[in-house]
Amino acid sequence: MITAIVLAGGVGKRMGMEIPKQFVMVNEKPIIIYTLESFDRHPKIDQVVVVCKQGWADTMWGYIREFGIKKVKWVISGGSIVQKSINNAVQFLSDKCVEDDIVVIHDGIRPLVDEHVLSDVIVKCQEYGNAVTSLPYNEQIFIKETEKTTNKYIDRNTLRRVSTPQAYKYEVLHDAYDEAISQNIGMVDSAYTNTMMVDLGHTLYFAAGSDKNIKLTTTDDLALFKAYLREKEL
Amino acid sequence: MITAIVLAGGVGKRMGMEIPKQFVMVNEKPIIIYTLESFDRHPKIDQVVVVCKQGWADTMWGYIREFGIKKVKWVISGGSIVQKSINNAVQFLSDKCVEDDIVVIHDGIRPLVDEHVLSDVIVKCQEYGNAVTSLPYNEQIFIKETEKTTNKYIDRNTLRRVSTPQAYKYEVLHDAYDEAISQNIGMVDSAYTNTMMVDLGHTLYFAAGSDKNIKLTTTDDLALFKAYLREKEL
Repeated sequence: MITAIVLAGGVGKRMGMEIPKQFVMVNEKPIIIYTLESFDRHPKIDQVVVVCKQGWADTMWGYIREFGIKKVKWVISGGSIVQKSINNAVQFLSDKCVEDDIVVIHDGIRPLVDEHVLSDVIVKCQEYGNAVTSLPYNEQIFIKETEKTTNKYIDRNTLRRVSTPQAYKYEVLHDAYDEAISQNIGMVDSAYTNTMMVDLGHTLYFAAGSDKNIKLTTTDDLALFKAYLREKEL
Repeated sequence: MITAIVLAGGVGKRMGMEIPKQFVMVNEKPIIIYTLESFDRHPKIDQVVVVCKQGWADTMWGYIREFGIKKVKWVISGGSIVQKSINNAVQFLSDKCVEDDIVVIHDGIRPLVDEHVLSDVIVKCQEYGNAVTSLPYNEQIFIKETEKTTNKYIDRNTLRRVSTPQAYKYEVLHDAYDEAISQNIGMVDSAYTNTMMVDLGHTLYFAAGSDKNIKLTTTDDLALFKAYLREKEL
């Protein structure tokens, strides 16, 4: 059994919009629905739980029905930060997953997740116990000296950028969140499952990423997404 | 006087193509021409030198004429690595720029450089003496343990990713390359002007970047670029 946790709890501050960015309409379809369609299409995904901003569950269910999304079984409420939202989902799944089940965690505002990216994260998780989508860098990475200046960089060949999807075995994930919550480890605003796992001493395994799998956080990203959709239609 | 150095010396290995990636045709126009059009359009740019892979200068001039590019005054040969290519251009400009002139360095395979990105790097360079286009991260950054695993990350709030365009005052740039070449500092394969400047002890100033200003290195990037062009046409 493979379950996906899809996070749809953001607020869209950086896009300067009044509705949460995952509900922004692109070609008359909310961004989150494009994401859920990717999971509906993937043959290995059995069921999906969507973690929503409080007060938006009815809207979410409305869209799920309107666009015929089949694999979403539950819509639950998120927390104040992304880590609390993921934890809510992990706790919620405690009577729905068994220890070796794979759980795939994904950002709702990454609608361009390819089938091969989802497949690789699942296959690698089966092999190694976990897997995180990752890519090398082709830009230089500098350490801020101040908000305006830098005088130090990091060799980009020593780094990889990790995004979602990420896959974990359910029991390990559940135990990790229990430990992290009780000891307040890896629960800051910029944290995610991957950083928390490392904080807890786990080693993570890289899976293949895709440059197309962008996170839609700015209006530039949104323009790229729209452009990409149009290209696909042709 | 503001001069741009546009680098067109890559080989396109990662796209699996036989011609250098900057010469890949998109809608019957080579990628490098889109980039040069951005410089032609920008009111502050006076002249451009293109650094080309050896043997491709005639092709480059052919395209410059065919597509009516106006500001390219010179096409010169690059070196074995990007830093040697930039150095060739910097040395070449020694009788064409004076000390306080601004030189803007840009990757030929970043065709989506916006007017406001070019403007900001120029304005900041006038104010601080140099400026590098940069953006914050919205992905997690992990340090490789092996090629397949990680057990450490870096707080992304402490970092910025720096790309091109970058702007420097000519004399500082020229002196920096002289020093770097003579002492073999900052001349490795993954180095660039920005990393070399930091290696030499300079502080760099951040200018505004744009998520759209992608480097076309993979076929995914190329798909995004094509998609974006189509969007602009509509």
